[in-house]
Amino acid sequence: MIDFLLEQGVLAAKGFRAGTAACGIKRSGNTDVVIISADQPLTGIAMVGTQNVVCASSVFRNREQVHGPEAASIRGVVINSGCANVATGQQGIDANCEMAKHAEQLCGGNMLTASTGVIGVQLPMDKLRKGIVDAWSSSGTSREHDRAAAEGIMTTDIVRKNIAVKVSTEIGDYVIGGISKGSGMIAPNMATMLAFIATDADISSELLQPLLEVVVDRTFNAITVDGDTSTSDQCIVLASGHSGVCISDTASPLYRQFSDALEAVMLVLAKAIARDGEGATKLVEIRVTGAPGDADARTVAKTIAESPLVKTALFGNDPNWGRLMAAAGRAGVPFDPGATSASIAGIEVYRAGVPTGFNAAEVSDAMKLPDVLIEVDLGDTAAGEFTFYTCDFSYDYVRINAEYTT
Amino acid sequence: MIDFLLEQGVLAAKGFRAGTAACGIKRSGNTDVVIISADQPLTGIAMVGTQNVVCASSVFRNREQVHGPEAASIRGVVINSGCANVATGQQGIDANCEMAKHAEQLCGGNMLTASTGVIGVQLPMDKLRKGIVDAWSSSGTSREHDRAAAEGIMTTDIVRKNIAVKVSTEIGDYVIGGISKGSGMIAPNMATMLAFIATDADISSELLQPLLEVVVDRTFNAITVDGDTSTSDQCIVLASGHSGVCISDTASPLYRQFSDALEAVMLVLAKAIARDGEGATKLVEIRVTGAPGDADARTVAKTIAESPLVKTALFGNDPNWGRLMAAAGRAGVPFDPGATSASIAGIEVYRAGVPTGFNAAEVSDAMKLPDVLIEVDLGDTAAGEFTFYTCDFSYDYVRINAEYTT
Repeated sequence: MIDFLLEQGVLAAKGFRAGTAACGIKRSGNTDVVIISADQPLTGIAMVGTQNVVCASSVFRNREQVHGPEAASIRGVVINSGCANVATGQQGIDANCEMAKHAEQLCGGNMLTASTGVIGVQLPMDKLRKGIVDAWSSSGTSREHDRAAAEGIMTTDIVRKNIAVKVSTEIGDYVIGGISKGSGMIAPNMATMLAFIATDADISSELLQPLLEVVVDRTFNAITVDGDTSTSDQCIVLASGHSGVCISDTASPLYRQFSDALEAVMLVLAKAIARDGEGATKLVEIRVTGAPGDADARTVAKTIAESPLVKTALFGNDPNWGRLMAAAGRAGVPFDPGATSASIAGIEVYRAGVPTGFNAAEVSDAMKLPDVLIEVDLGDTAAGEFTFYTCDFSYDYVRINAEYTT
Repeated sequence: MIDFLLEQGVLAAKGFRAGTAACGIKRSGNTDVVIISADQPLTGIAMVGTQNVVCASSVFRNREQVHGPEAASIRGVVINSGCANVATGQQGIDANCEMAKHAEQLCGGNMLTASTGVIGVQLPMDKLRKGIVDAWSSSGTSREHDRAAAEGIMTTDIVRKNIAVKVSTEIGDYVIGGISKGSGMIAPNMATMLAFIATDADISSELLQPLLEVVVDRTFNAITVDGDTSTSDQCIVLASGHSGVCISDTASPLYRQFSDALEAVMLVLAKAIARDGEGATKLVEIRVTGAPGDADARTVAKTIAESPLVKTALFGNDPNWGRLMAAAGRAGVPFDPGATSASIAGIEVYRAGVPTGFNAAEVSDAMKLPDVLIEVDLGDTAAGEFTFYTCDFSYDYVRINAEYTT
């Protein structure tokens, strides 16, 4: 059984502590350093980083750590918000390394790093060194520490993003908790996607890494705000083993349950990012069915989700089936237009190549809700399907992204 | 030598006539029927249509005509604006055919068709039949007829798009003239891309078709307003042979000159569409060099040109090199970020992986001009290059596309 713990985050899992500090990287004076660390060596660790060729040194170094000989020594992650440390040359690479080393002296193991914020600016190391010490000395395991960690990684985010689930099994209970941040997809407007997930299940890196890659594909890689991919995106999962529930057989119901629970946590965190998209007024779920294959369905869903014409129509509560079908048609996936159908908010607007006689005012009203479901069926008996999550495109998106000046 | 005839369009080429009518398809009462037709059989014809799977019946039928046994009988094209005749089922297919047949009875040869405007609505055939008769009976070859044809195909376009070039050769002169329309990429907000080009050079379909496909790739397929592809896009070239200048050898300087002149005409018409993009305040040229190959350069240029973050930064006159490099990095083309450089309006803002110490106010001022050049060099010695044309993303784009209600 999986129970949601709505108010909790990364510290819902036992065996972890978190500390935060405001060291002055953010001009606002808000929290800008977060440390999440296990008390004992981890049983497993996994990470997925940005596919962008222009890649932050933190993502680059973390990959080496997680997939290298020192993986067993990793205890947690040190994060700063307010400065992305991207496009900062050798000085930035050195600063990233020093940030990790500084935390490692305190935390008793190797540390991963993450930075989010303005790019092209060097990390203020004097401030950050002090911030890391302050964050560690204030660290703890309380609900307040949990919430502070979720808040400390925010940049342009309007809402805190956290969730946990408690999983009950025959051999005991365990928890998976996580936090995420991101609202546009990229700096310099401070909007990288970061997610940190902790579990007290006992699972190895060998099982966790391939599982994370699969689940990321259906969650964090299935959301889009504006189609832009940050240079610093990453998702890190830490397993402490503290619950004593050992997940070691990929064919077991225990593994399947862990996979479902991890996906539930990651989907909540991913949808929270799309809903908090820059200028967004609603979360939109694009469900494509009847495609030649799941990958084709994904391509069509992503093309619809990224179409500015579709996204502006969503902002305007316009049941514009023509834009849906035109976006589907240009996705590069073959289908028979005469066999397609589409629904908006559960109301069929298009069938067999022509619009239905739907009541436009009724559909438009339904589109004013904070959650809008769009379903497109391509009519292929192979029944490939995929769901993408996005938000609408408003005046505020243009304002936020045009009025920022470097 | 190639001379631009800025005020002229499709009738600058001899051997063609055009007629227009306002038959009531457009509620505004503006011209909504245009006929462009040759007085004699054509020496050659070529067309390129939308790649969208959801494809207008006009595009479908034109492909059959141009590549079928009746190609030699084609005289011209009949166009209506205000109703796209897309997603109209069998009734729409029949209406498209009848539109052609009706014009063919008047024009003395087979006719292609094009429709642009609202989708999901049937063509009002009574009005259109009368409009075709009126357009034909008022047809002529004057400058007024030329301008009326360019205006008659407009929908949401703000400006008329026309250009002609006169080509002087050792064996005589000929002309290539054209008109285009389009501002967003798709209906129902009436914004299909259409282009009609006429030449009085004597060139065969066998030469014209492959040449058009190559030139389209560098012109109409190298512009983007919002990344959306209409269901009805097409570009048609008609050759009358009236000048007596015969172009028959692809290895000859005459052919190369024709190719250059055709590209000049099509590039002017394509850039005019990007500049007139919905809500656009400027034309932006994205020139990518130093890529592994030209196709890679195209991919990177297109990714930058379609990035909402880049386009909103352009609207805000923000010299945001970070968004340029992040868009380049996610295009799927491998490159060394440390070897890249970027310039905005001729001012280098990024070099070898870090920002230059450019004067942001100076670059921002230069970005306020109606034409902005962005150059990105990926540092690969293979030196692949491509140029894409786009416009910025403004509040008006959101307004135009959100406030339209079906």
